[in-house]
Amino acid sequence: MKTKAAPPISLIQGRKTLPLIETYFELNHLKQLFRQGWLRVGIPSERCESVAEHSLFVALLGLFIAEGYFPQADASKVVRIALLHDLGEAYAGDITPHDGVDREAKHALERRAVETILGKLPRGADYLALWDEYEHGTSFEARLVRQLDRLEMGLQACVYEHQGAGDLSQFFVSVEKALESPELRAVLAEIEALRPE
Amino acid sequence: MKTKAAPPISLIQGRKTLPLIETYFELNHLKQLFRQGWLRVGIPSERCESVAEHSLFVALLGLFIAEGYFPQADASKVVRIALLHDLGEAYAGDITPHDGVDREAKHALERRAVETILGKLPRGADYLALWDEYEHGTSFEARLVRQLDRLEMGLQACVYEHQGAGDLSQFFVSVEKALESPELRAVLAEIEALRPE
Repeated sequence: MKTKAAPPISLIQGRKTLPLIETYFELNHLKQLFRQGWLRVGIPSERCESVAEHSLFVALLGLFIAEGYFPQADASKVVRIALLHDLGEAYAGDITPHDGVDREAKHALERRAVETILGKLPRGADYLALWDEYEHGTSFEARLVRQLDRLEMGLQACVYEHQGAGDLSQFFVSVEKALESPELRAVLAEIEALRPE
Repeated sequence: MKTKAAPPISLIQGRKTLPLIETYFELNHLKQLFRQGWLRVGIPSERCESVAEHSLFVALLGLFIAEGYFPQADASKVVRIALLHDLGEAYAGDITPHDGVDREAKHALERRAVETILGKLPRGADYLALWDEYEHGTSFEARLVRQLDRLEMGLQACVYEHQGAGDLSQFFVSVEKALESPELRAVLAEIEALRPE
C-alpha cells in the first residue's frame, strides 16, 4: 500500500508514553496514507489525497449537510461518526474493492484496529460504539455519514477531473449506488452537471 | 505560498452551482495548501502536512481531550470550532509569523474569507459566530481549541523529528508559550520526553 512514510507509531516503538500520545502517533498514519483508488487511476502522488484529508471533508459536509438539509438529524453525532469512521485504516490500510478482500475480513481488520487505537482512551467505549453504528448502519446519522463518505468522493473526483485526470465515471457510478436520500441525490446531480465535458 | 495545485474554485469560475458545492470547491484548497512552517525548516513537500490534515487532528484531539480531561467543556462545540478555525486559509493562505503580516491584517483577510465561504450556507451565521469566538478567545471551548491548535503542531513536530527532520525546538517554544492549562502542559511535557536525543 503506497504511503508517504512508514507508520509514525513504529518510530516510538518500546517507548512509554501517555495513551493519548500513543493514539496520536497511531492515527498520524492517516496523514501518510494515500487514498489508493486515486493512485490506481493515475493521480500523481504529489496531488493524491490522504485519508486524513478525506475524513476532514466528510466531517465538514456532515456539519453543513446535517444542519442545512436534515433538521431531524443530531448534527453533533453526525460529525463524531464522520471523524471516527475511517480511523481503522491507520492499521488496516485503505482497502479498496480492487484488493479482493471480502467485506467481513475488511470489517474484522478495521474493528481490531479501532479497538487498539481508541480502546485505551477514557471514552474509548463510546467511540467504538459509534464506529460500530457506522459499520452496521444502525442509526439515521450513521447511514447519513455512509452516504456523505461517497458524496465526498464524488466531489473530489469532480475536482480531479477539472485538474485534467480524465474520465472518472467509475467513481460517480459508485456514489450513485450509495445515495438513498433524495436530497443527496439532488446534490449529486448538481455535481455531475459541473463535470468537464 | 507553496501549494500542490491551483485553488480548485478557480477551475469552475463562472459556472453556476449550489452554494454547498461552491463552498466545497473553495475549501478543497485546504487539501492543496501546505503548512508553510514545515517547508521553511526543510520538510520535503512529499511529506509536508496540508492544512486539511492539521485541521482533522485538531478536531480529533478536541474530541478526545475535551471528553477525557475537561468534563466542564461542551465537547461538540470544541469539535465544531476545531473544524472551522482554519477555514479562512482557503483564501488567505497559511500566513506564518515569518511573513511579516500583522495580527490585525491577518485577521481581516481570514474574516473576509470565512464570510465568503460560509456566509452562503443555511447556518452560515452560526459558523461565523463560532469562528469569531475562536479568534477572540471568548469562551472556554474557543481557548481550548487555540491551545490544541498548538499542541497538534508540537505532536507533528515530534513525528517529524523522529523521521529525521533535525532539531525543531522553535516549534516547541511556540507550543509552550500558548499552553495555559496545567492538563495540557502535562501532555506537552510527555511529548517533549518522547523527542529524539
